[in-house]
Amino acid sequence: MRDMDQPMTDGPFAPVIEGANALGRVVVVCEHASNHIPTAWGDLGLTADQRCAHIAWDPGALGLARGLAQRLQAALIHAPVSRLVYDCNRAPDMPGAMPARSEIHDIPGNATITPQERARRTAAVYVPFHDGLHGLLMRRIALGLRPVVITIHSFTPVYFGQPRAVEFGIIHDSDPTLAKAILSGAQSAGKLNSALNEPYSAKDDVTHTLRLHATPYGLPNAMLEIRNDLITSPQAEQQMADHLAPILAAAVGPLP
Amino acid sequence: MRDMDQPMTDGPFAPVIEGANALGRVVVVCEHASNHIPTAWGDLGLTADQRCAHIAWDPGALGLARGLAQRLQAALIHAPVSRLVYDCNRAPDMPGAMPARSEIHDIPGNATITPQERARRTAAVYVPFHDGLHGLLMRRIALGLRPVVITIHSFTPVYFGQPRAVEFGIIHDSDPTLAKAILSGAQSAGKLNSALNEPYSAKDDVTHTLRLHATPYGLPNAMLEIRNDLITSPQAEQQMADHLAPILAAAVGPLP
Repeated sequence: MRDMDQPMTDGPFAPVIEGANALGRVVVVCEHASNHIPTAWGDLGLTADQRCAHIAWDPGALGLARGLAQRLQAALIHAPVSRLVYDCNRAPDMPGAMPARSEIHDIPGNATITPQERARRTAAVYVPFHDGLHGLLMRRIALGLRPVVITIHSFTPVYFGQPRAVEFGIIHDSDPTLAKAILSGAQSAGKLNSALNEPYSAKDDVTHTLRLHATPYGLPNAMLEIRNDLITSPQAEQQMADHLAPILAAAVGPLP
Repeated sequence: MRDMDQPMTDGPFAPVIEGANALGRVVVVCEHASNHIPTAWGDLGLTADQRCAHIAWDPGALGLARGLAQRLQAALIHAPVSRLVYDCNRAPDMPGAMPARSEIHDIPGNATITPQERARRTAAVYVPFHDGLHGLLMRRIALGLRPVVITIHSFTPVYFGQPRAVEFGIIHDSDPTLAKAILSGAQSAGKLNSALNEPYSAKDDVTHTLRLHATPYGLPNAMLEIRNDLITSPQAEQQMADHLAPILAAAVGPLP
């Protein structure tokens, strides 16, 4: 269930869960689904353009995640708050959890955060998100559904002024099995410029959700990064879901 | 906060947290603190003697954990339900989570558990315990308290008819730093027959709590096992806490 945003509330902001009882193995996770900044945090000192940019969320990721979840009979969980308030794919002691700077943008509202404010945001956004995901996964493990964790992200085509050629990145943590199978399927399909551990890798601390929820339980897992200029409209999101869903299904199928 | 046990309730059974705002680095965890079987699960088909035996809990562990927490200015979290209903140090798909047999004892109430009942117990006991521990640790990370996770267990002196010589076991998961420092301190003190990764080790899947809460965050951690014939009274528990607290403090002190 989602807490409705109310003026001046500071949470907790429960994640949104869709298809909790879906019968497929995949659980789709979207940490950067929303650019919403709850009233308690004002505008963080950002312009309207900045609040719509990739620094605030992963544009297109939620639409793609939803499209994949529908096609895979997957459960979907997504965070209702901007990564600039709290980035749910980062631990509370990581600078990126409440970043003072993101790419070329200063985040004035994050310039000086007291330990108490770090704890407040952690309790309001990060803890409810991961408790929600944990409960969803544990229920599915207990029921014998053998969950597979796939997180959906998008990345900007130009970063620090440099264009990025890769279109589809598949990132793994300690277990590369599923990521390599997805890469193989994507390369066979031949449509997207696909690469393993691009544009980021576990060394950049981007696999926090996988480390927290998949690795300790031995669950197959992968993090998918789609270049956001390929998913700029609902139609483009659905076309991408049409392309990727069979690749994911084929990669998940043989897993133990 | 603890949910008071009420007739026929099946939870959720929140963990008990003591000293949540304690200023020391250590967070003491006691998964097997209680032999309480909530009314909803009857007596699991066990005799009164069996329900008081080591198969139902870790006798003496809570008293020792409390004594250590007081001496170390540590926060303490413990589970309010018997490990025979749900063993909070096991994932929901592990046979030991709701064991049909423990050492030489059959557990009739666990002989046949439907997937729905596995999910019910998981939601009632396991998920609230780990969400409580997660929230406690995340708050302390956000506040900059650099938490150290130490779990407290006790083991039976005779197992499958074999006496055990070891008195104090220190078990590690992937990071042995703290465990080795505690072993060194215990051996220098020269009082207890101490050993690394005895009577169990990570290979026996006993480090679940450490894997879930410490390893993904890079938190120093160790699991302590004390032979339960050494902590059979409140006085003995306090004497053991007197002995171990300075060993733990000396081992934690130099940690980054």
